[in-house]
Amino acid sequence: MEGPIDEAVPAHVERALTEYLATRHSDMAEAAPSFGSAVASLAGFVLGGGKRLRPTFAWWGWRGCGGAGDGADARSVLRGVSALELIQACALVHDDLMDASAMRRGKPTVHVEFAERHREQGWLGEAERFGAAAAILLGDLALAWADDMFATSGLDAGRLAASLPPWQAMRSEMLAGQYLDVLTQARGDETEATALAVARLKTAAYTVERPLHLGAALAGAPAPVVAQLRAFGADIGLAFQLRDDLLGMYGDTEVTGKPAGDDLREGKRTLLMSLGMADPARAELLRAALGDDDLTPETLADVRQALVDSGAVAEVERRIDALTETALAALDRADLAAPADRVLADLAVAAGRRSS
Amino acid sequence: MEGPIDEAVPAHVERALTEYLATRHSDMAEAAPSFGSAVASLAGFVLGGGKRLRPTFAWWGWRGCGGAGDGADARSVLRGVSALELIQACALVHDDLMDASAMRRGKPTVHVEFAERHREQGWLGEAERFGAAAAILLGDLALAWADDMFATSGLDAGRLAASLPPWQAMRSEMLAGQYLDVLTQARGDETEATALAVARLKTAAYTVERPLHLGAALAGAPAPVVAQLRAFGADIGLAFQLRDDLLGMYGDTEVTGKPAGDDLREGKRTLLMSLGMADPARAELLRAALGDDDLTPETLADVRQALVDSGAVAEVERRIDALTETALAALDRADLAAPADRVLADLAVAAGRRSS
Repeated sequence: MEGPIDEAVPAHVERALTEYLATRHSDMAEAAPSFGSAVASLAGFVLGGGKRLRPTFAWWGWRGCGGAGDGADARSVLRGVSALELIQACALVHDDLMDASAMRRGKPTVHVEFAERHREQGWLGEAERFGAAAAILLGDLALAWADDMFATSGLDAGRLAASLPPWQAMRSEMLAGQYLDVLTQARGDETEATALAVARLKTAAYTVERPLHLGAALAGAPAPVVAQLRAFGADIGLAFQLRDDLLGMYGDTEVTGKPAGDDLREGKRTLLMSLGMADPARAELLRAALGDDDLTPETLADVRQALVDSGAVAEVERRIDALTETALAALDRADLAAPADRVLADLAVAAGRRSS
Repeated sequence: MEGPIDEAVPAHVERALTEYLATRHSDMAEAAPSFGSAVASLAGFVLGGGKRLRPTFAWWGWRGCGGAGDGADARSVLRGVSALELIQACALVHDDLMDASAMRRGKPTVHVEFAERHREQGWLGEAERFGAAAAILLGDLALAWADDMFATSGLDAGRLAASLPPWQAMRSEMLAGQYLDVLTQARGDETEATALAVARLKTAAYTVERPLHLGAALAGAPAPVVAQLRAFGADIGLAFQLRDDLLGMYGDTEVTGKPAGDDLREGKRTLLMSLGMADPARAELLRAALGDDDLTPETLADVRQALVDSGAVAEVERRIDALTETALAALDRADLAAPADRVLADLAVAAGRRSS
């Protein structure tokens, strides 16, 4: 990968991940040959797609707080923030197993891939149990390697120490958000407060606020700048999730890559649904559809209409606009270096407006 | 906990874990109250028992290579090596889920505890799925916190950098060993080489060799000393696992805390079984019993007798003796500082002779 990092952050992230995983894979294949092919599956998963959102936000946090765009320090930071994709690999592999999802990015999920391998080989025991074990262990490996990649990225001791608070908070908040999500579905909690709490932890903090915080900490940004940048991240992260909820209900499957109504089928208690269920005239219909495995196209159409009629869709759109506005004001107060100020403003607007 | 660390390593480890988990729990309970009670369950699991073997070996590696027994450095090292118990918590919580084990240390396993909570509360969805999700996420949290605890133990940048090779290898080898174990059972692999490879990764490297390596690296030990200490650890780690295999077959449940024959029921391909199955006169009996969920006391008695008659038990005992001997010779060559030299020699002999 030649050329400035600024001009192609995701491509540079993928190059860093490719190099790191190749080294670890070759070490493991030597120490434990049969584990090598499992590691190759994990590497395929990590390199097989994704928007590289978290490293992108972290990179622009670094740049906006005065971090260099090239040179040795910049390359170390790029490697360090690329490790966020390994945390995300753990989150996705384990999440797919917990949700029993069969497909991701148009390919079988990891637990399904290993269950199929078991079946093809005619191995002993249950194929599903083997698939689950492989997914648990490979997710764990990704999480351990995230720390390893960050620790060996070439960052000096001062930067490593400064990065600990966001790095540590990020992983715990991601797991807290996942747990809260599972718990909320189990409890059938319909409140707006809970829907917002899940979105704040799972998406706003983990995907945007903490990556920006990490980049700023690596650059040694002063506390007031970090605070504004985090406020910006929390708001656009939430806007991003609210747009995601709308896309999950009204998005074009061809564009989003996810079947329409999937959140509904899985029983996800989004803010959109929470607002809809607060309307007594629509609550019964929405409640019955939430978590319905056999959701028909007709019921999905009724749900879509009910959410519009209840005013929930308009309210979510209104909140996305308001969050984008407060986010941009915080970004302005952070007074970041160019071109990060412009890039982050563009990302903020895109997060609320995107179609995939 | 007052008094010298040397005189009560496990108790000091427990105190360090108690303090660390209390701080993290209080932070999490504030950020995400519903996650707080799940974190409390994880803390109860970590503090609820265990021999604290890995921190103990790491501590004596440090002491044997000249590390101080008290003072600020010693306390940082103690906190750092206590983090190994959080890696082990992840390994056990995830392993119990993969094996569908109901009990550990006389209490329900984590996935069973959360499934019961789900049932008691009459929550929505399947209780087992909720239990599995909680166990996956809490195991992940333990793994993330192991890195966090190590990174914030107070070790200076030089020691942290020196510790990276053993720290990184240890987590990967543990996961490789777990995967190889699952794969070996699926494949029905009966070879001695595979049984030894699993034992080397899962137990020898992860439980003894790498913790000793970590302690030596923290003390800045020269390469030849590290090499001897690792050789010692690899041998007594393997002896430890071979004794474990014998105890799993012949041990007193009252003493071991595990039902006799559990390894057999679970289909574990231990070296003991591999040697027994190499005897054509006993192979059929042993193969039929391996992985038999409905193992009767009569069959278990027949298996025990067959393993004795085939000479497998005597061969395993012979190997334990030989490994203890080569381990003690390597320890001698490492020429460690007192009292670590004596303590490690005692641990080596005990690993091969213990009854629980």
